[in-house]
Amino acid sequence: MPQVGIIMGSDSDMPVMAKAARILEKLEISFDMHILSAHREPDAFFAYAKGAEAAGYKVIIAGAGMAAHLPGMCAAIFPLPVIGVPMKTTALGGRDSLYSIVQMPSGIPVATVAIDGGENAGLLAARILATGDAQLLQRLKKHSDEMRETVELKDARLQGTGFEGYMR
Amino acid sequence: MPQVGIIMGSDSDMPVMAKAARILEKLEISFDMHILSAHREPDAFFAYAKGAEAAGYKVIIAGAGMAAHLPGMCAAIFPLPVIGVPMKTTALGGRDSLYSIVQMPSGIPVATVAIDGGENAGLLAARILATGDAQLLQRLKKHSDEMRETVELKDARLQGTGFEGYMR
Amino acid sequence: MPQVGIIMGSDSDMPVMAKAARILEKLEISFDMHILSAHREPDAFFAYAKGAEAAGYKVIIAGAGMAAHLPGMCAAIFPLPVIGVPMKTTALGGRDSLYSIVQMPSGIPVATVAIDGGENAGLLAARILATGDAQLLQRLKKHSDEMRETVELKDARLQGTGFEGYMR
Amino acid sequence: MPQVGIIMGSDSDMPVMAKAARILEKLEISFDMHILSAHREPDAFFAYAKGAEAAGYKVIIAGAGMAAHLPGMCAAIFPLPVIGVPMKTTALGGRDSLYSIVQMPSGIPVATVAIDGGENAGLLAARILATGDAQLLQRLKKHSDEMRETVELKDARLQGTGFEGYMR
Amino acid sequence: MPQVGIIMGSDSDMPVMAKAARILEKLEISFDMHILSAHREPDAFFAYAKGAEAAGYKVIIAGAGMAAHLPGMCAAIFPLPVIGVPMKTTALGGRDSLYSIVQMPSGIPVATVAIDGGENAGLLAARILATGDAQLLQRLKKHSDEMRETVELKDARLQGTGFEGYMR
Amino acid sequence: MPQVGIIMGSDSDMPVMAKAARILEKLEISFDMHILSAHREPDAFFAYAKGAEAAGYKVIIAGAGMAAHLPGMCAAIFPLPVIGVPMKTTALGGRDSLYSIVQMPSGIPVATVAIDGGENAGLLAARILATGDAQLLQRLKKHSDEMRETVELKDARLQGTGFEGYMR
Amino acid sequence: MPQVGIIMGSDSDMPVMAKAARILEKLEISFDMHILSAHREPDAFFAYAKGAEAAGYKVIIAGAGMAAHLPGMCAAIFPLPVIGVPMKTTALGGRDSLYSIVQMPSGIPVATVAIDGGENAGLLAARILATGDAQLLQRLKKHSDEMRETVELKDARLQGTGFEGYMR
Amino acid sequence: MPQVGIIMGSDSDMPVMAKAARILEKLEISFDMHILSAHREPDAFFAYAKGAEAAGYKVIIAGAGMAAHLPGMCAAIFPLPVIGVPMKTTALGGRDSLYSIVQMPSGIPVATVAIDGGENAGLLAARILATGDAQLLQRLKKHSDEMRETVELKDARLQGTGFEGYMR
Repeated sequence: MPQVGIIMGSDSDMPVMAKAARILEKLEISFDMHILSAHREPDAFFAYAKGAEAAGYKVIIAGAGMAAHLPGMCAAIFPLPVIGVPMKTTALGGRDSLYSIVQMPSGIPVATVAIDGGENAGLLAARILATGDAQLLQRLKKHSDEMRETVELKDARLQGTGFEGYMR
Repeated sequence: MPQVGIIMGSDSDMPVMAKAARILEKLEISFDMHILSAHREPDAFFAYAKGAEAAGYKVIIAGAGMAAHLPGMCAAIFPLPVIGVPMKTTALGGRDSLYSIVQMPSGIPVATVAIDGGENAGLLAARILATGDAQLLQRLKKHSDEMRETVELKDARLQGTGFEGYMR
Repeated sequence: MPQVGIIMGSDSDMPVMAKAARILEKLEISFDMHILSAHREPDAFFAYAKGAEAAGYKVIIAGAGMAAHLPGMCAAIFPLPVIGVPMKTTALGGRDSLYSIVQMPSGIPVATVAIDGGENAGLLAARILATGDAQLLQRLKKHSDEMRETVELKDARLQGTGFEGYMR
Repeated sequence: MPQVGIIMGSDSDMPVMAKAARILEKLEISFDMHILSAHREPDAFFAYAKGAEAAGYKVIIAGAGMAAHLPGMCAAIFPLPVIGVPMKTTALGGRDSLYSIVQMPSGIPVATVAIDGGENAGLLAARILATGDAQLLQRLKKHSDEMRETVELKDARLQGTGFEGYMR
Repeated sequence: MPQVGIIMGSDSDMPVMAKAARILEKLEISFDMHILSAHREPDAFFAYAKGAEAAGYKVIIAGAGMAAHLPGMCAAIFPLPVIGVPMKTTALGGRDSLYSIVQMPSGIPVATVAIDGGENAGLLAARILATGDAQLLQRLKKHSDEMRETVELKDARLQGTGFEGYMR
Repeated sequence: MPQVGIIMGSDSDMPVMAKAARILEKLEISFDMHILSAHREPDAFFAYAKGAEAAGYKVIIAGAGMAAHLPGMCAAIFPLPVIGVPMKTTALGGRDSLYSIVQMPSGIPVATVAIDGGENAGLLAARILATGDAQLLQRLKKHSDEMRETVELKDARLQGTGFEGYMR
Repeated sequence: MPQVGIIMGSDSDMPVMAKAARILEKLEISFDMHILSAHREPDAFFAYAKGAEAAGYKVIIAGAGMAAHLPGMCAAIFPLPVIGVPMKTTALGGRDSLYSIVQMPSGIPVATVAIDGGENAGLLAARILATGDAQLLQRLKKHSDEMRETVELKDARLQGTGFEGYMR
Repeated sequence: MPQVGIIMGSDSDMPVMAKAARILEKLEISFDMHILSAHREPDAFFAYAKGAEAAGYKVIIAGAGMAAHLPGMCAAIFPLPVIGVPMKTTALGGRDSLYSIVQMPSGIPVATVAIDGGENAGLLAARILATGDAQLLQRLKKHSDEMRETVELKDARLQGTGFEGYMR
């Protein structure tokens, strides 16, 4: 029974949502993933959202673009945390997706991450689950250490090569 | 059996949506009006949208602000025209409402009017119904004549008073 | 005698407006299409708009970019529904087109769809005509069923391949 | 026979357009002023624009708000300079008016001034007429001198009072 | 030992953050609240963020305006969920606060809610804690029921008074 | 002695400003063109602007990007019409250039055209000069006729090929 | 001989620029202040900017609104640091002022602070002078200590009153 | 002991920050450069910022993108001038970086330059140091002369080739 449900309104969102999936895999968090459109299949969407608590999901990550209703409608039905990922759009750069997801009215929160922020959506889900899972918290800290080390290595390389050399 | 259903996500939208109602009254189009939140009462919303065709509505006018999902979710379920009215918002001026309503993905159109454009929403519903109602079309043309005359009267007054006098 | 008139201010708008035309073809709605600039040929534009009702059009779909006046000027003259399609622009992403079309003053509504939303413009015209045409409504519902099935098939494929496989 | 025609789409634009009128009065340039809506009275608008050259206008100043079509449609018909004044709007601050006026397609220029820039519209009309009127050019230079002196006086006052005193 | 820490960069954020506090009180979630500026007292801020896990906080809610660094810097140090509340600003409407909070780089998520969305920040903290607290989940559902009933009562009142009566 | 001076802040603006030059050539209006930076060579700029009236220029067309000060500073010194052309920019799409040019304070007008609107800048200069040159006005009208005919030919082609054929 | 010159394009900028003056007074930095418009008195502006180095200024703080050219033109002539203060504007919130000041082309830097950020302009001037003045650096640190203590006192008060009491 | 410290949040910022480094090299100002993330290595960042004054830095140039906290947090700790360079971003064009850097609260100034304005950041650092270094000021003036000559040469070339030739 997966702890996290990843859904997206269109399969064009897959490269962004895959980043959420990969970080969950790395952190050993169970998840499943569905293409599910609130607009094109409202019945299937409602069935999913209504059944999500009983299905055992603790967190849902929903990605959507343009008039991005999927995360907000999900949060209107599923009572546990919903994380929204606004997709970059060609016309408005993702401002439309961002506003449609983050500007929820009082009563129905969506935990919004950056435009195309799939990886952070996965990490936020992990942090949420880590509030009750000390081992996951340790894995998260290890991941942070690795990020830190990656930056340190880059700076060390820069000190060796100089900036002109670094860019070659 | 009303031809037009007016719905709004919050009673704070009433002053804008009342403008739609008044123009429908003037044009002798039957309508009813409901406060109905897609976010706060998703079941009631779904029941309304699913039953709207059978209830005899030909057009639905939906007003909403911020992450304004009501018009788009309505258009996902109700197969006839949905007119969306984006509400002005204090933080973003209504840009959030506008993008959340107009930037619908291919397949699910919402006929969007201006921010706070309640009157135009009513007039658009009338134009839609007038595609099959010659008498309504006559009433619409009469309304346009009155608008024209109002501007003509203002200009006539201006010619009489001069611009300094006009502003007094 | 076509039911829908499709007009555009420039032939650079053709790829977007063709999407409207194709969906009308699919839904068996008669239409014609003209390149017609309110700015470059105001006389021809006025003649078209003034004659559109007598010519039998029930709905006009007008696409335009930048200071997009074509839909609004059309709605000022033609008394039945006008659908506006804002074109994406290189400098401002289509925000200019969108504002010029959707922010109409009270009295003259334009039913605005998304930036580059040609397909939704066609679908909205179909929904409008379906208010008085039960067979068209059936064809629209069939089209919605097909959209739903397309998403279901994609999700089924995802369940088979996994997300890494899906992107290959 | 007035040299400048001032038109506005709504009498709510009067306070801004009066600034254009006052500067024309000061610079002894003949003008007249009309409330004239391209949207609400397209026939009257077309008659005005088509007759404007024969009526002797050298420049037209057109103010409009929201989907501000008046200046652009005027420039599509009247062959001499059209100056557009975008009105501040409550929802979008005047960005809608500005884009609708300034983003004209190639072929049809509108000389756009600042949002609510009525005074500059009048001054621009004067500069245009001064290309062929040496006496007007002298009056314009005198006006510039006065502006300069006003700033000099303010600075002199500041040097006397200090900044805390200046604000009292 | 409180489960939720509420912090804000300035006491001008208090009215918004109080909405988070009130909903936590209602849902019987322990919390404390501090005015704590990452910019004006970086040492105190670092000490708070570094000690927050040991202090027992499960979630931190951070509100900030303009170049709103508090939530993001908190999330860089505290390993559990950080909820960011962007404050409305007079110049940019809160767009500055929103972008500074939501556009975090990969690796450091901040769960962002709407501009001035204090209440939703509190509710999101509750949903996060409810992933491991079935009784809190029941209280959350009861809160949702009350929200639904409030809308139903408003609609019932509207059906009784009509829209003109409702606005009186 | 040229009637129009074309200046630009950087030679990267040349492709846009060349459009102004070409239309002036076509309309037989004398002009010269300079690369002249208000920021990088303020003395040369001041000398140019101060000497422009005596040099016989009737209109100056100034193109600039980003913090585009060239048109406004020119209008502060040269007493006849200055036309500003905002350049598209990679980061902000030209919004920075547009605002820096159009939002001039009262007293100093710049006749602003669209982002990258070089051709319209040339046409606006021609319209300004045509206020005192009947033959130029005839050439302008002929140019408008040609624009109209170009659109008519495109529409005729469309009627022949159909829209699918047109795009091939 | 003052070390810092404060200039502003209009006396409406005085309340914002007074904040710069007050912090300079507090930090015992000599300054003078002028109302000086690059647009309305270009000769006086040029004379000021050209003479500023000889007059002994080490830093110039320039405030301006809308198409805010004063800081950038100053930086084009004066070779030492120029700090730009963008003014909030009614139509565009100060976005126009900000872009006109910060988006300077390569070669001519303006040190830009927040919209209406007069106090930070003064503090930035102080930091610049402190690079060569150890006593000023001590006064700056003392000022930072006071800011920190102010926040600490507010938090102490909050711990005493609780948040409901704090807002009374 | 370098006078200027250049830091950036990610090595993707290197091409922009290299422009700062190159101009410092040209102007013979000592500097070093580090990749240093306030988000991914807060401890290392704090150590750097706290030690920067003692290390002898007079100015720090900090580049960052998206929710760009590095310059502001640096300015909260380091008491001398901090110059912020906002990076262009794919979704929002750099508006997010710009607002996160420039909209600092009163008390903590960041000297902000244009989006991707690495070269101006270097020049601003030079101007700051030149307030106490007459020889550096001479080198800066020489650099300005070279910039001027480059524009003059381009204009001379244009006068020789004509604009069509220039673009070939």
